[in-house]
Amino acid sequence: MKNKISLIILGLLGFSIVSCDDETALNETLIMALTEDPKPAEKAVVETIETKNWAIAIHGGAGYISPGRYDAEEEEAYLDALDEALKIGEEALKSGSPALEVVQQVIMHLEDNPLFNAGRGAVLTNSGTAELDASLMDGRSLNAGAVAGVKTIKNPILAARYVMDSTKHVLLSGDGVEGLVGKAGLEMVKNEYFITQEHREELKSIQKHGTVGCVVLDRGGNLAAGTSTGGMMNKQWGRIGDSPIIGAGTYADNSTCAVSCTGHGEYFIRKSIAHDIHARMKYGKQNLATAAKGSLDELSDMNALGGFVAVDKNGKVAMLFNTEGMFRAYSTEDQRVVEMYK
Amino acid sequence: MKNKISLIILGLLGFSIVSCDDETALNETLIMALTEDPKPAEKAVVETIETKNWAIAIHGGAGYISPGRYDAEEEEAYLDALDEALKIGEEALKSGSPALEVVQQVIMHLEDNPLFNAGRGAVLTNSGTAELDASLMDGRSLNAGAVAGVKTIKNPILAARYVMDSTKHVLLSGDGVEGLVGKAGLEMVKNEYFITQEHREELKSIQKHGTVGCVVLDRGGNLAAGTSTGGMMNKQWGRIGDSPIIGAGTYADNSTCAVSCTGHGEYFIRKSIAHDIHARMKYGKQNLATAAKGSLDELSDMNALGGFVAVDKNGKVAMLFNTEGMFRAYSTEDQRVVEMYK
Repeated sequence: MKNKISLIILGLLGFSIVSCDDETALNETLIMALTEDPKPAEKAVVETIETKNWAIAIHGGAGYISPGRYDAEEEEAYLDALDEALKIGEEALKSGSPALEVVQQVIMHLEDNPLFNAGRGAVLTNSGTAELDASLMDGRSLNAGAVAGVKTIKNPILAARYVMDSTKHVLLSGDGVEGLVGKAGLEMVKNEYFITQEHREELKSIQKHGTVGCVVLDRGGNLAAGTSTGGMMNKQWGRIGDSPIIGAGTYADNSTCAVSCTGHGEYFIRKSIAHDIHARMKYGKQNLATAAKGSLDELSDMNALGGFVAVDKNGKVAMLFNTEGMFRAYSTEDQRVVEMYK
Repeated sequence: MKNKISLIILGLLGFSIVSCDDETALNETLIMALTEDPKPAEKAVVETIETKNWAIAIHGGAGYISPGRYDAEEEEAYLDALDEALKIGEEALKSGSPALEVVQQVIMHLEDNPLFNAGRGAVLTNSGTAELDASLMDGRSLNAGAVAGVKTIKNPILAARYVMDSTKHVLLSGDGVEGLVGKAGLEMVKNEYFITQEHREELKSIQKHGTVGCVVLDRGGNLAAGTSTGGMMNKQWGRIGDSPIIGAGTYADNSTCAVSCTGHGEYFIRKSIAHDIHARMKYGKQNLATAAKGSLDELSDMNALGGFVAVDKNGKVAMLFNTEGMFRAYSTEDQRVVEMYK
């Protein structure tokens, strides 16, 4: 009986199915298979397109960026921060870095910047702690990793990458992942590291969306997407929004596009927005602009606020939102924009 | 400044946007708005179709149900359990119960049955506890609720319903939701309640998928879907699979179909399988059978094992899997099937 069960598990992990009558040997093989690092599913790899076009788009949240909220100095600080993050991505792309690495590098930089609600500078839950979510997806292999509700990992996007590369899972939450990642040598900090003075003083009942995200097409034709957030201000302990949900806040597939979302996460989950844009392109044969507009309209129809950045496999960029502004920037070989208002 | 922020939040919650110069009054309204029970987004309601057709499909997992694993007595116990759950659903549907209530009632029943890996009878994590996930979606309003990693709520599907009805969130995880739901009067149990002798004795390294799920079309033309699970045997603490992820393990939209999945959750997340079936119908104009087959093929291409049950708005049923068996049953006005093997 055990043999049969084992054989199926081996098949599931992509190993060839073998006949084995020696139960001990088989169980050893089984345990090895279960603890071995996961392999990307070879069949799912989409052929890369040889292209010299690259594209990158980033966002820093779409919440309440109405003219008048920030003074000139604050506006400049935000635009400079976006510009700086964009430059990091541009340089990496020009030098031929793969999409996944670029997304990770740019999001790390935004996490370290206290201006955004991701990593340092995250908003507080209703119990007064910072709880961080992040996700990452590789459009080439459809591999993905995400973490939810982490409190002591300095760069949640690196924890998402760890989940993708070094576990058999896609999404890990809470204390469990902290222990795992800590052992793997990622930089850990006290929860206080994330909490900046500005957030302590902020009106407790105000929700803030300052999620960061990055989508990239690299010179090899590969797409990747990533998102990182401190979640909703004053959120209930344990609330998981769209940012760590592959399909809701983040999606990437080389055959269509890469998407990173920001906004009222509950609606992005109910509409699987990131996957919805991909699906409109894949099944509805819509181009990126039409697909993005269609998905945004569905959010607007539900009175849901937010936006997203997306890049398609040809390097077209879409940055859509139904709020009064969204911190955003994009760059291609011949265009470059850094903006915050409509 | 506060006023501007407040007005946007009110708009987001579907309240009419008002002009108000009295900051105190506005803040009171704001706080009320933020704590008030969420309203379904009116615009998202799809018109119900008057029909007398109803349909229900349920699953009890697709893991390792190969002929020979169970003896005749065990097979009978599983088929009886499915039959009993199906009857509960059939009777409720004939008497005109709404889809969402039927899904909830059937899943509660399956959770209480220790034969399945959901509620009582759940498998153990690698730290030896039961951690349960569940989700529920209403195809009429696209409202949804889900819980991940709960340990002391007797019926996780009721906790998912609580999240849907009584919080502003879609997905809550861990200890936070236990406190919330406990206060709301849901029945709480010790973690030991979930752990049956059979699982204690099971080979620790064997993964088991016995997730339960239910999809329903009611007589009013409304669709609903729900899924509940103990997750993967020996899973890492904090691992979240597809079951509590709206779009991956569960999806329902009156305009297309209702879906509940079971299997290797990480792949169901990476392909947003439940939403994918919906998207194929919506954007690709595929019928349910074609859509379901297409999504299953994508899983098979990634060497991912599992299956799903789905019902469309016309009462067509699909029950697909790429394993050797899936505990499953469906019923319509003129057909009734209870099966476990291919």
